[in-house]
Amino acid sequence: MFGEYLENVRRNSPLIHNITNYVTANDAANILLACGGSPIMADAEEEAEDITSVCDGLCINLGTLNQSKVGAMLKAGKKANELGHPIVLDPVGAGSSAFRTESARKLMNEVRFDAIRGNITEIKTLALGKAGAHGVDADSADIVNKDNISSAIAFAKAFSASCGAVIVISGAEDIVCSACKAYVIKNGHPIMSRITGSGCMLSALTAAYITANKGHGLEAAAAAAAAMGVCGELAYERLLVTGGGNATFRNYLIDAVFNMDGDLLERRAKYEIQ
Amino acid sequence: MFGEYLENVRRNSPLIHNITNYVTANDAANILLACGGSPIMADAEEEAEDITSVCDGLCINLGTLNQSKVGAMLKAGKKANELGHPIVLDPVGAGSSAFRTESARKLMNEVRFDAIRGNITEIKTLALGKAGAHGVDADSADIVNKDNISSAIAFAKAFSASCGAVIVISGAEDIVCSACKAYVIKNGHPIMSRITGSGCMLSALTAAYITANKGHGLEAAAAAAAAMGVCGELAYERLLVTGGGNATFRNYLIDAVFNMDGDLLERRAKYEIQ
Amino acid sequence: MFGEYLENVRRNSPLIHNITNYVTANDAANILLACGGSPIMADAEEEAEDITSVCDGLCINLGTLNQSKVGAMLKAGKKANELGHPIVLDPVGAGSSAFRTESARKLMNEVRFDAIRGNITEIKTLALGKAGAHGVDADSADIVNKDNISSAIAFAKAFSASCGAVIVISGAEDIVCSACKAYVIKNGHPIMSRITGSGCMLSALTAAYITANKGHGLEAAAAAAAAMGVCGELAYERLLVTGGGNATFRNYLIDAVFNMDGDLLERRAKYEIQ
Repeated sequence: MFGEYLENVRRNSPLIHNITNYVTANDAANILLACGGSPIMADAEEEAEDITSVCDGLCINLGTLNQSKVGAMLKAGKKANELGHPIVLDPVGAGSSAFRTESARKLMNEVRFDAIRGNITEIKTLALGKAGAHGVDADSADIVNKDNISSAIAFAKAFSASCGAVIVISGAEDIVCSACKAYVIKNGHPIMSRITGSGCMLSALTAAYITANKGHGLEAAAAAAAAMGVCGELAYERLLVTGGGNATFRNYLIDAVFNMDGDLLERRAKYEIQ
Repeated sequence: MFGEYLENVRRNSPLIHNITNYVTANDAANILLACGGSPIMADAEEEAEDITSVCDGLCINLGTLNQSKVGAMLKAGKKANELGHPIVLDPVGAGSSAFRTESARKLMNEVRFDAIRGNITEIKTLALGKAGAHGVDADSADIVNKDNISSAIAFAKAFSASCGAVIVISGAEDIVCSACKAYVIKNGHPIMSRITGSGCMLSALTAAYITANKGHGLEAAAAAAAAMGVCGELAYERLLVTGGGNATFRNYLIDAVFNMDGDLLERRAKYEIQ
Repeated sequence: MFGEYLENVRRNSPLIHNITNYVTANDAANILLACGGSPIMADAEEEAEDITSVCDGLCINLGTLNQSKVGAMLKAGKKANELGHPIVLDPVGAGSSAFRTESARKLMNEVRFDAIRGNITEIKTLALGKAGAHGVDADSADIVNKDNISSAIAFAKAFSASCGAVIVISGAEDIVCSACKAYVIKNGHPIMSRITGSGCMLSALTAAYITANKGHGLEAAAAAAAAMGVCGELAYERLLVTGGGNATFRNYLIDAVFNMDGDLLERRAKYEIQ
């Protein structure tokens, strides 16, 4: 099933408007090109609606946020809602500053998102108003593991029910869920947390997948998370052969997305439905 | 002839002021270093004239545009005109938003450019005021092919005659022309469109080439386009040997510029004059 | 001794707040992850104090400076001083524009820095108010060589005495000094100047090292400079084996930081104390 979602991205080549941070914008653009989509990065309020209108989907990422970008996000988000374009929110660093937390809430209040992807701390901040994150990584107290994954899934389903978006919580195992169904994705490799942009790239990929598979948001987001995880595994396997470190791994990860096909994704995707 | 223009870049090591987007700024900086030039990226209005003054050439790129950058572009452009520094305009996304189209026109009205490089849709937007682009790639209705290349060349020559700049239209074959002479560059590889920044990198390279070869703008711009195309071919050949995807290709492309010399460019450049 | 400082970075995993430029932000983030630290990039005035507060150290970099970032730098810097967080200043391009020179001076007046890292021209601009830099590279008249290194060390010690920060002057040999003791680091390779971000990456690395080794600022900064130099040598040696250019070198450099350990740094570090 996931393989078909991947092939639909290559077939439909969705054009994604990204309002994103300057740290990982290049990686996000290259991963969108790698998966068969096409990126345009634009964050000025003056052109937010125009750019959204010529695109097929929207990805809003709160990294390196500033006041002017928030204005662009609101305008682009409302326009995308009006046009029926799928929207992904990546609340990078929500909980790390009042500005990011409040901006994320404002976006949640004024824009309807199709999917929200973050680490457990960022998602909890959105859902519960809990702050206290340390930087852009998940807080150690929040880490999802075998013992608490059931309660994390219940929490994510409840959040999905309340906000209407597919919820994607990245971690050692990724949770991708709607109000009543959760995919637990068991692909990936720990080295993915040793490069910047793993999360941002998955958010961009998710935007491409849900845009190219309209009406199948949950499954498409699960396929994107599985694809990213499988590509992390493939990249790590290639790194073991050639040697190298996190910079080489980043390149191999994008390369793997470029070379991936539906069959390979079907064969390697590991997940449970709960 | 192209080989000499390349060697002049290495010899003169032009320092290029880039007012550019945050998606491909790193790639543009590294390709300028690779070709033998030197980059400085600076986009604040407060320092635009100062930075232009300590540089040898200027490259203005409309990616991730905002109002404050437009102010910097106008100030830097006027100062560069005053000092006789060559200027390249890359109208990224012109036609995709009224803001970009109008900013590009304003720049065209107030600054004299030595070269303008874009895809066919962006260049048509500048020349004809035609909008309706979809993102940052050429519109499918505009694509230049065997059947319409003669009319594309005639159009580009007429635009060059009216604005005084060398016109560079990137595509499967690149058109580089003045009012009365066109180089059709037949180098390159389709995978170049599967990375972000191919166009931005060529614009930066063009700025380096025309700055290091003053008084030979047309030939220098043609040499830059040929060099980029040859490096795309070399990078793809290397990719076939090592394996990899678009991320590895991006690195190999910059590497090829780094390792290129005038003799190799002479041997591999394929072009017609029309 | 340097090896222990490196291991402390891996052990303490310092979270560094970076207010930096968009050209090399991705490289700086990846090198922080490579060395065992963790990055957060955030440059909005609205969240500067919040972000600094959740981090352990701060790195302020003047590349692609604008007025709004200066405000964020001042707020973050004062908050970091208040909290006792180590701060590194990288005065990229100081001397190239009045705006950068004045912003650097304002920062020096209002914030106490633990370390300042730049090329000789940037450091002279800060210390002497001398302007006239050409871009972001050292001015040829300033280059430190065998004949003038003694006077450069004396100058750097005097500057350290007057401002209280460890001074790091990058060049063919790096000078890392306090008011009374200088390490002259003899590691590195000339190709490091053929990629963008060598300096920015070292500044970020220095922030990680001095944050993870509080109370040992001079030695930690010297260890960071030696580690960067050794990694440059290792990356170049790997490049000789695989072939490639500056893009591949950049990846290998970050990879080398990722794979480096204290023993290797001890064995390869070459320095004199003066």
